[in-house]
Amino acid sequence: MRKTLSLVILSSTISLYASNNLVQEALKAGLKPIPKDKQELKKLIDNPKNPITKEKVELGKKLYFEPRLSKSALISCNTCHNLATGGDDNIPVATGHKWRQNPHHLNSPTVFNAVFAKRQFWDGRSPDLEDQATGPIQAAPEMDMHKDMAVKVVTSIPEYKKSFEKVFPNEKITIKTIGKAIGAFERTLVTPSRFDDYLNGDENALTKEEKEGLKTFIKVGCTSCHSGVALGGTMQPFPVAKPYKYANVGDFKGDKNGMVKTPTLRNVTQTAPYFHNGAVWSLKEAVKIMGETQLGKTLSEKEINSIVTFLKTLDGKKPEITYPTLPNSTKDTPKPSLD
Amino acid sequence: MRKTLSLVILSSTISLYASNNLVQEALKAGLKPIPKDKQELKKLIDNPKNPITKEKVELGKKLYFEPRLSKSALISCNTCHNLATGGDDNIPVATGHKWRQNPHHLNSPTVFNAVFAKRQFWDGRSPDLEDQATGPIQAAPEMDMHKDMAVKVVTSIPEYKKSFEKVFPNEKITIKTIGKAIGAFERTLVTPSRFDDYLNGDENALTKEEKEGLKTFIKVGCTSCHSGVALGGTMQPFPVAKPYKYANVGDFKGDKNGMVKTPTLRNVTQTAPYFHNGAVWSLKEAVKIMGETQLGKTLSEKEINSIVTFLKTLDGKKPEITYPTLPNSTKDTPKPSLD
Repeated sequence: MRKTLSLVILSSTISLYASNNLVQEALKAGLKPIPKDKQELKKLIDNPKNPITKEKVELGKKLYFEPRLSKSALISCNTCHNLATGGDDNIPVATGHKWRQNPHHLNSPTVFNAVFAKRQFWDGRSPDLEDQATGPIQAAPEMDMHKDMAVKVVTSIPEYKKSFEKVFPNEKITIKTIGKAIGAFERTLVTPSRFDDYLNGDENALTKEEKEGLKTFIKVGCTSCHSGVALGGTMQPFPVAKPYKYANVGDFKGDKNGMVKTPTLRNVTQTAPYFHNGAVWSLKEAVKIMGETQLGKTLSEKEINSIVTFLKTLDGKKPEITYPTLPNSTKDTPKPSLD
Repeated sequence: MRKTLSLVILSSTISLYASNNLVQEALKAGLKPIPKDKQELKKLIDNPKNPITKEKVELGKKLYFEPRLSKSALISCNTCHNLATGGDDNIPVATGHKWRQNPHHLNSPTVFNAVFAKRQFWDGRSPDLEDQATGPIQAAPEMDMHKDMAVKVVTSIPEYKKSFEKVFPNEKITIKTIGKAIGAFERTLVTPSRFDDYLNGDENALTKEEKEGLKTFIKVGCTSCHSGVALGGTMQPFPVAKPYKYANVGDFKGDKNGMVKTPTLRNVTQTAPYFHNGAVWSLKEAVKIMGETQLGKTLSEKEINSIVTFLKTLDGKKPEITYPTLPNSTKDTPKPSLD
C-alpha cells in the first residue's frame, strides 16, 4: 500500500513537472495567454490614445452593426466580420458593394482577438484597429462610402451626434472618430479558450492529446510565426521554404518587402477558408501546406492531426452581444445608393 | 373650494368620458391593441400548426441570422429585415445575391409585427410567416439558395441536426421545417407601443396632440385599410381614388385582382422609404399621397401633421435579442458560391 501510494505521488509529480515544463516551453516559444485577471486584460487590450470606456464601446458596437455607414446601407462591418460566426465571412474572397470582390482576392480576416495583432490588414499597412476600421468603410469593393458621407450619416442622427459629443468631447466628428469608436468596440472582442486556462495554470484544461498537440506545434516550428497572445499578428516572410501552392489565386505579394501578416490561430476551426487568398478549406490541408511552404517540412499525418487537435483548444468563449437598436435616420441623413 | 373641486371632478369625468369615447371609437374603427396579458399575446401570435416553443424560437433565431442559408453565405434573413433598424433594409428596392434587385422593384417590408398580417408578401401570396420564410431563401434576387442546398447546410452541421430532431421530432428536415423554425422566431418579434398602452386602458399613454392625431386618423378614413392589431396586413385595392403618383417605379400591379397588401404602420417612422416600390422617403408625403390615392382627399397640412403625430406613437419596444453564435460548418457543408 505504502509503495503504491509512493508511486502515485511520484507519478503525479512527474506529470506535474512534465506539464510545467510544457507551459514553460510554450512561454519560451513565445506563446502567451489571454490574461485571466480582468485588470491585466483591460490593460493589454486598451489603447492609451483611445481609452476604452463603456459608452465608447456601446457607440462603437452600434457603428459596427450600422449598415448606413455603407453607400448602399446594406453592408456593415459585421457583414464581412460576422460576430455570429468566426468573426469573418467564411467565403474565399471579401465581397462588398455592387458584389465587387477584393481586387487582390484577399480573404476577410477575423475581428475576434484582432486587438492582439501587431499590425492590421494582410500587408500590415495599418497600425491599429482604430485606423483599420476606417478603411473598409471607404473601400470601393467593401462599403464604398465617402468619408464625408459617413460623417454626414452620423451627424444627421441626433442620438449619434450626442453620443459622439459625450464620448469624444473635444474632437470633431470625422472618419477618424468613427474609427476610434469602432476600434474601441473591437478591442473588447477577445475569446479566452482552454489554451489560456492551461497557460494560466489550470493543468487539467487540456487533455493529454491536446498537450501532445501543443508539443508538436512548438517542436515543428509553428511558433516561429504563430506566437504571442494572438498566435500570429506579426509581419513575416511568405513563402519561406517552397512556393505557396495556391499562389496563382489573386495577385497579392505582401507589403513592399514581401512580408505578410500572420493570421491569428484563435478560433481557427471557425475561420475557413484559409490563407490570405482563402484558397484552402481544410484545416488539415492548411497545416500541411504551412509545413511545406514556411518550414520546409513534410509533416506526417500524425503530426498534422496532433497539431489540429491542439488548434481546436483555441476555440474561445465569445463575448455575449446584445444586438443593438440603431437610431432613426432623419431627413438630413444621406440616402443610400446601390450604384 | 367645493365648487373648484366639483369642477375638477367634472372636468376629469368629461375628459375620461371623451377619452373612453375615443378608445371606443378606435376599437369600432377596427383598431386593436397588442394584448398586455402575456397569455393572451401568446395565443394571438401562436400558430396551432407550428406551436411556439423556446427551443424552436432559439433555433429559428439562429437560422434567421444564418448567412449560410444563402448561396453566397453573405446574406441572411436579417440582411433585408434588419432587427437593428425597423426590421427592414431602408433602401427602396430589395437587393440580394449578385447585387440583383427585385425585378418588380419591390421594397422589403418589416418583419416586426408581421405576425399580425393576414397575408405575407406584397401580393399576399403567402398565408403565414412559416411559408413566407421559405421564399426569400430560394429567390434568385435574394438569397438564391436551392432548397436542397439549404437542407444540406443544416443537416451537415451536427448542432443544427440535433436541434431539428428535438424541435421537430417526427418531421424530416426540409425547407418547410426550416421555414417553420424561422417563422416561430418571427412570431415573437412584436413591438408594443404607447398606442397599445392607450387602447389597453392607460389614459395618459398618449398626449392630447396624439389623441387628436388618432381622431384625425380615424376621421379621414385611414382605418378603412390600416386596422387590426397590425394597422394593416390585409389585401386592399390600390390605387382607389387616383393613380398612385409613382406608379411608374417598377411594374408591380398587385395580385391577380389588383389587390395589394397594406403594410403595417407600426414603427412606420423607421421603415422609410414607403410604399411597395419604396418611392417615397418622407412620412408626411406618404400620408399626403395616401389621402389622395386611396381616400380621394386632399389632406390639409394640419391633418397630415396630426396623423404623423399619431403615427409616432406606434414606435414600439423591440424585444432584446442576444446575437447568436452559429455552429461550425463541417466538411460536408456546401461551399458558398458568389456566382
